[in-house]
Amino acid sequence: MVDVGGKPVTERRAVARAVVRMSPETAAAVASGDAPKGDVLGTARIAGIQAAKRTADLIPLCHPLPLSFVDVQADLSDGRVVLTAEARTSAQTGVEMEAMTAAAVAALTV
Amino acid sequence: MVDVGGKPVTERRAVARAVVRMSPETAAAVASGDAPKGDVLGTARIAGIQAAKRTADLIPLCHPLPLSFVDVQADLSDGRVVLTAEARTSAQTGVEMEAMTAAAVAALTV
Amino acid sequence: MVDVGGKPVTERRAVARAVVRMSPETAAAVASGDAPKGDVLGTARIAGIQAAKRTADLIPLCHPLPLSFVDVQADLSDGRVVLTAEARTSAQTGVEMEAMTAAAVAALTV
Amino acid sequence: MVDVGGKPVTERRAVARAVVRMSPETAAAVASGDAPKGDVLGTARIAGIQAAKRTADLIPLCHPLPLSFVDVQADLSDGRVVLTAEARTSAQTGVEMEAMTAAAVAALTV
Amino acid sequence: MVDVGGKPVTERRAVARAVVRMSPETAAAVASGDAPKGDVLGTARIAGIQAAKRTADLIPLCHPLPLSFVDVQADLSDGRVVLTAEARTSAQTGVEMEAMTAAAVAALTV
Amino acid sequence: MVDVGGKPVTERRAVARAVVRMSPETAAAVASGDAPKGDVLGTARIAGIQAAKRTADLIPLCHPLPLSFVDVQADLSDGRVVLTAEARTSAQTGVEMEAMTAAAVAALTV
Repeated sequence: MVDVGGKPVTERRAVARAVVRMSPETAAAVASGDAPKGDVLGTARIAGIQAAKRTADLIPLCHPLPLSFVDVQADLSDGRVVLTAEARTSAQTGVEMEAMTAAAVAALTV
Repeated sequence: MVDVGGKPVTERRAVARAVVRMSPETAAAVASGDAPKGDVLGTARIAGIQAAKRTADLIPLCHPLPLSFVDVQADLSDGRVVLTAEARTSAQTGVEMEAMTAAAVAALTV
Repeated sequence: MVDVGGKPVTERRAVARAVVRMSPETAAAVASGDAPKGDVLGTARIAGIQAAKRTADLIPLCHPLPLSFVDVQADLSDGRVVLTAEARTSAQTGVEMEAMTAAAVAALTV
Repeated sequence: MVDVGGKPVTERRAVARAVVRMSPETAAAVASGDAPKGDVLGTARIAGIQAAKRTADLIPLCHPLPLSFVDVQADLSDGRVVLTAEARTSAQTGVEMEAMTAAAVAALTV
Repeated sequence: MVDVGGKPVTERRAVARAVVRMSPETAAAVASGDAPKGDVLGTARIAGIQAAKRTADLIPLCHPLPLSFVDVQADLSDGRVVLTAEARTSAQTGVEMEAMTAAAVAALTV
Repeated sequence: MVDVGGKPVTERRAVARAVVRMSPETAAAVASGDAPKGDVLGTARIAGIQAAKRTADLIPLCHPLPLSFVDVQADLSDGRVVLTAEARTSAQTGVEMEAMTAAAVAALTV
């Protein structure tokens, strides 16, 4: 793990995006909230937020960070779900991995 | 998740309470440390403390917080177990959910 | 922990319920999906399902169980949110604690 | 969550693949085990295996499954890291999500 | 991870022991339940049981196992705390690591 | 849990060591990276780092701490594996338990 002890605490913000392609039929079911597993986009959003908070637990060399904000937007357009994750913190290292982890897990959930 | 990045870091403290009602026979067994599962109140106390530290993992929109203190008192009186959880931190948001989660999980453990 | 090694594997099912009372204003915001934190009932449902899967991690003397089904229904009526959790498994011990943990964490999330 | 209680226990196996593209310089550092964070491919492999075991914790509607085997291969060729994850179980539902989660987290680790 | 898919399910049992040496003063405080952190042996016992259930999460190449029984005994004698952990399961692989992890974490807790 | 709220935030650093003895044959297999489970020392290193980040989850009365650095060195000499774990933070309490947990889990992994 990189030692970040000597770095200043600064405001950090990262945004990551994942895209899930699907058949028109699946996209229609997701759009109508009619998929067999219920509200797919809402579930993906929560899964992504939770995953961001577990980033240091998943990625061995990541530092545990306090997060002042995490959100995942899940949008369906043109038969694709676009998951946009944003993470913010005041810390000695960045939140790129947190945003990428949130987007990836939200995409897996879809 | 609410963005707390712009809020000042202040001292926070929260106390929550849960009550478990039981039959007089069960209460007597708990009181004598004689329940089939051993020291019920001690186990509940540890479970509650551990749960407080996992609050952000359990409650999707909670922020991960450093905790400077958590404790759970478990008292038996009048055939009821009263679980009183207290959490403290210096952070940008409060520890109400941490105290409530500790009290709830301690009560489930009883 | 009770040794369940000698017990037969049977079908198990448990249902637990938690009720959250709130002011009429809060209930109206929850009903319209208009609360500051978004879709409260959907988030509570996911949090409860996830908590059921972590029961053995939260409650010290619970056995880890494979779960064949978990669900949490969140219904708003008369200004109260009623959370009904159900868990099922084929195992050597019951899923009462899984259902109760799901209902409790879903209620905390609300 | 889909109720799988009525399904037979069968042998299940799934393979998933993720690809990480990188600059020739980064690829050379990874190949020589000379990257600033050490043995990148070995770390990714362990992170993927661990993530497979946490799939039900990450993906809200996944069932917890016993896994009889998980592995992640990490190969570098043509300046790309290819992560191939395999999971196996005897269970009532498949391990596709376990393999995909392992591949995705291994890729994030790279 | 070794593939255990082809192995038969059999009864498994393992016992592990850890010893913590301490000064006579510390031992006396532990014996009287008077240590600054309260009931040291009871807390160690719970920590060990919880750790056994998390073995596959801590040790990368361990299989996740259902456990039918875990217990940790903590005994103080001759100024030493002896932690004896036992784990049992019906599975395709053994519970040696579960017992060793329980004993080690119980010892760390002391 | 001890209340550390009133203590100043200072730089903290701890080092812990664990030793695993083994037969000359096992040591030779570890040395050549030829053990049945692959790169034993690399896997132990990652397991130890991950365990340090989970210390507060494993040891009931430990405070959750941000860590600015964790590393585990695994060295084989004279037929023994020596695991040296180091943890650093800026916090209100020390990282002794984090270093000891990292060394212990790395040793269990070996």
